[in-house]
Amino acid sequence: MKDSIKVFSPATVANVGSGFDILGFALNNRGDIIEAKMNNEKCIRIFNQSGTDLPLNPLKNVAGVAVQSMLTDLKTGQGFDITFHQKISPGSGIGSSAASSAGSVFAINELLDNPYTLKELVRFAMQGEKAASGVAHADNVAPALLGGFTLIRSYNPLDVIQLPSPKNLLCTIAHPDIIVRTEDSRRILTKEILLKDAVIQWGNVAGLVSGLYTNDFELIGRSLQDVIIEPIRALLIPGFDKIKKTVLEAGALGCSISGSGPSIFALSNSEGVAQIVEQTMKKIFNGMDIEVDIFTSTINRQGQKII
Amino acid sequence: MKDSIKVFSPATVANVGSGFDILGFALNNRGDIIEAKMNNEKCIRIFNQSGTDLPLNPLKNVAGVAVQSMLTDLKTGQGFDITFHQKISPGSGIGSSAASSAGSVFAINELLDNPYTLKELVRFAMQGEKAASGVAHADNVAPALLGGFTLIRSYNPLDVIQLPSPKNLLCTIAHPDIIVRTEDSRRILTKEILLKDAVIQWGNVAGLVSGLYTNDFELIGRSLQDVIIEPIRALLIPGFDKIKKTVLEAGALGCSISGSGPSIFALSNSEGVAQIVEQTMKKIFNGMDIEVDIFTSTINRQGQKII
Repeated sequence: MKDSIKVFSPATVANVGSGFDILGFALNNRGDIIEAKMNNEKCIRIFNQSGTDLPLNPLKNVAGVAVQSMLTDLKTGQGFDITFHQKISPGSGIGSSAASSAGSVFAINELLDNPYTLKELVRFAMQGEKAASGVAHADNVAPALLGGFTLIRSYNPLDVIQLPSPKNLLCTIAHPDIIVRTEDSRRILTKEILLKDAVIQWGNVAGLVSGLYTNDFELIGRSLQDVIIEPIRALLIPGFDKIKKTVLEAGALGCSISGSGPSIFALSNSEGVAQIVEQTMKKIFNGMDIEVDIFTSTINRQGQKII
Repeated sequence: MKDSIKVFSPATVANVGSGFDILGFALNNRGDIIEAKMNNEKCIRIFNQSGTDLPLNPLKNVAGVAVQSMLTDLKTGQGFDITFHQKISPGSGIGSSAASSAGSVFAINELLDNPYTLKELVRFAMQGEKAASGVAHADNVAPALLGGFTLIRSYNPLDVIQLPSPKNLLCTIAHPDIIVRTEDSRRILTKEILLKDAVIQWGNVAGLVSGLYTNDFELIGRSLQDVIIEPIRALLIPGFDKIKKTVLEAGALGCSISGSGPSIFALSNSEGVAQIVEQTMKKIFNGMDIEVDIFTSTINRQGQKII
């Protein structure tokens, strides 16, 4: 049995346009690097070498909360040291808290010789999400653990389905340097929606799932349409409407808000288009004097990677 | 060029649990038999040999309305005689008006040497639905024309997607002898719904589509859950809750209301279960002194059939 392990835990895009709270996919080019080690202290200790500010109190750190829920379920008093070597910027909207929660429970599950399946780990990682945003959503932690596109068919009981991930699908992310708290971006949503909008939304969700199974990029693109969440959350992201319009004109398959924002994602199926999308996003944010981190990634089909 | 044609136009189950207004599938064991013939009258004439009461005025008959919208689009003055030889009971909830609209536009498109594709015909058949219920929904006419399971991803623009139809899937229909008008069953729906219910619903829609692609009968079954429409419409169908509970206990994969009701459908994947489902439905309706027509059908993958 190993007593130490290091993992890469990927960034993720939740919602994917139409699939608020149920759909997500994992990325290759951003993620946390987390090391876990058994200790003799009978408690969880958090260490931070990532250069990003993180709570070291395990009751306030999402990884600590997620791991503690797993250890409690296992009824073990074994303690662990969790060290962050690399950290996705918190508040970016690409699953920073999910990567930490998913990566730590995965790593410690490995150290304990895998008492849980990957799908079973989703439940524990969700506790980290609850600590981060008040809601135990699974649309980031599921793809972070399982890789590719995932569907949360149901939260009660939890039912996680792996969807296919078409090759040659590229995702460009623009993370503008503005602050949107997940909690706030949930709070501005209305509790009630129009049935006629919901019909549009579930038509698009069904179209997106169909497009993933049939490798139909055009269908995937036109199914990214979100008539319920995006119009509200877009208000929190300066330039969103202009960026979306411009990248679609430039050939992107679709464009929407990543998770609760402020990151914007756009899908494309060629390097050439992805490059134009990057330049377009950069130009528009720069024109508003907003710093922006932009990158393009293939879809991460593996999920957690031991390094 | 033929000047006369006879077609079988199938009954259909719309909504399919979670997919209100967007999902539907076609049946083999019930349908309209419609004959179309060119005439020299420059107008549409409706004839009825079905034994079921039908409006003969082409402006009031759904087939007349659907065909007229097609002929107007074609800018042709050619007239047609449409004769009903067999008719699904109107008001049954298994796509009676859709079968008539779809069958007539299909038959006349054939007589005119197919100026339209099957998907293009959906738009004209929808005009028949509008005449029948006030709403130009497509979730019955699309599967009636294309066969199998179909998705209306979007109404505006119209985007019809064919989904796979797993073999060995059986559908049992119970049509109780009570009257539920499509118009009424639309009117009792609330215009606003809770976002949290919508999330449950689109999770199930996504699960259903995934289950169809992967032949996962269990997933199909548990995705039939409808938390928005069914709880309201079930109020119009005596015994619905008891029937649903009993057939699920008997092994049915799922059970819900077919279209706007009053028919109830249950899916299963074995003849044995389907037989028990039939007996259960019969017993419960008989116990309430309600006449009921019950049958089990395979999924119709062909759609319209020239006979």
